[in-house]
Amino acid sequence: MSGEADLLRRLKALATDPAARGLADDVAVLPPHASQLVLTSDTLVEGVHFRPDDPADTVGWKLAAVNLSDLAAKGAVPVGCLLNHALTGDAGWDREFLDGLGRALNRFGLHLLGGDTVALPKGAPRVVSLTAIGGVPAGQPVPSRAGARQGDRLYVSGPVGDAGAGLALLNAGKTAPGELVRAYRVPQPHVTLGESVAPFAHAMMDVSDGLLIDARRMADASNCAVEISNVPLSDHYVKLHGNSIEARMEAATAGDDYVLLVALDGRREPPRGLIPVGAFSRGEGLSIRLDGKRVRVPDRLGYEHG
Amino acid sequence: MSGEADLLRRLKALATDPAARGLADDVAVLPPHASQLVLTSDTLVEGVHFRPDDPADTVGWKLAAVNLSDLAAKGAVPVGCLLNHALTGDAGWDREFLDGLGRALNRFGLHLLGGDTVALPKGAPRVVSLTAIGGVPAGQPVPSRAGARQGDRLYVSGPVGDAGAGLALLNAGKTAPGELVRAYRVPQPHVTLGESVAPFAHAMMDVSDGLLIDARRMADASNCAVEISNVPLSDHYVKLHGNSIEARMEAATAGDDYVLLVALDGRREPPRGLIPVGAFSRGEGLSIRLDGKRVRVPDRLGYEHG
Repeated sequence: MSGEADLLRRLKALATDPAARGLADDVAVLPPHASQLVLTSDTLVEGVHFRPDDPADTVGWKLAAVNLSDLAAKGAVPVGCLLNHALTGDAGWDREFLDGLGRALNRFGLHLLGGDTVALPKGAPRVVSLTAIGGVPAGQPVPSRAGARQGDRLYVSGPVGDAGAGLALLNAGKTAPGELVRAYRVPQPHVTLGESVAPFAHAMMDVSDGLLIDARRMADASNCAVEISNVPLSDHYVKLHGNSIEARMEAATAGDDYVLLVALDGRREPPRGLIPVGAFSRGEGLSIRLDGKRVRVPDRLGYEHG
Repeated sequence: MSGEADLLRRLKALATDPAARGLADDVAVLPPHASQLVLTSDTLVEGVHFRPDDPADTVGWKLAAVNLSDLAAKGAVPVGCLLNHALTGDAGWDREFLDGLGRALNRFGLHLLGGDTVALPKGAPRVVSLTAIGGVPAGQPVPSRAGARQGDRLYVSGPVGDAGAGLALLNAGKTAPGELVRAYRVPQPHVTLGESVAPFAHAMMDVSDGLLIDARRMADASNCAVEISNVPLSDHYVKLHGNSIEARMEAATAGDDYVLLVALDGRREPPRGLIPVGAFSRGEGLSIRLDGKRVRVPDRLGYEHG
């Protein structure tokens, strides 16, 4: 069996939803639906969003995870996805990539519905895109990043900085603790928590570029000021870098965290799983206060990408 | 203004539908929908699907057109799309690309809803993807490629071979008639015709890889045999290549036509705009009979791509 025929067979094994039409028809057909549909799309480029030596199955997982994280941030239940896959002539890589993608799709119930497979010129960096669709019950608000209000508290759904620390060690050619490498390569989208928080979140997004830059973006979109007063770190991170102000600023600007960033009414008891990191007030811009002291806002707030 | 900020401004100008949320929210949100949704996605790669010297605005147009052609083949009314755009550091190219894309989106009412913009490593071939969504009224059948029946007639919605002839001349470094180059670079998806034919088509798809290969695919999916008895050519094509059997076989295997391929009940009067090209019968496989004589089926039926 040619590499391409094998790939198609593997893709079809992931496309069991009737809407996929067995990947035999150029299109998918979703029946009429009573839900609102949330649509998102993300591209990963070799050498930009992943390292050429990242295991292919982790690249597949991550492509699904970054899209699922966007669905989670809107409280959307995963429905289906379309994959744009670029072959580069390495059938083993493609097979492992699909294994990892398939594990994530199965884990979170995101059905493969269609897409496109193309050949890349020899030597071109790999480029893979996924477009994901989620459902939100009719009438339920779909939180944007623009809804935070003065007096709201800001929360994240997990520690930040692990992925960035793992990537930095890999880039430096050093041995990195498994937990940090996994945070970078195999992020876990917070889909269930997102579904439960979305109905009463004033604003929600995921932290993909760094806590500081994404909190600033939420504040700007909401015409509020935001003060960051806590940077939650994992034990693995603290073990490696300590928890100095510098270590916390590094973690807050690293990106690739894929935790949820949530603005809730300050008088509301937050649900389990959310960690307070700051508050919104009248005004504009970002300020930082840690251990009771004002901290200079770093020049670089996070990953500013193309 | 930086090239990227300029690009974002231009993208936002195309994203006027409320579902796009002004491209400010990582996701698009479609309201509950009484229609069936048709989803398709296509990728164009520089050096594979378009020539590096193709004008950027025609690449943008073509990316929209190939996706719209898939919607047309299912009778779907264009709804919206998500763009995966890869920057390569040439702001002028990106601007012209978006101009051409925008012209096609506006012409066919396909709203930009979201997507992703990434940076490619220097020197990498351009890779652009579009995922398009169309609507079909609830209860209306969405023709697949698998529904052709014995006794059905096969039709196309226009002449074939022009795009292939234009591309061949460009590849040979020769001057090509404007009409043939336009057929290759600026294909016109047959959206309105597709909408009108879909409700009673037994099977429908678009001819993207060549009349012979796509007719064969429809026959295989439908468990029928198909005989091709006509290869409609444009005046421009005939002026260049004549209408010998060889010229017609060349046109029938070239691909990039983006005309509709439709199987209709043989007793039905076809609507205006459809040209008969063959018929389905019991059995399997493809045969060709032109000018009353059996023609050997060529080894290469069309473009077989990754």
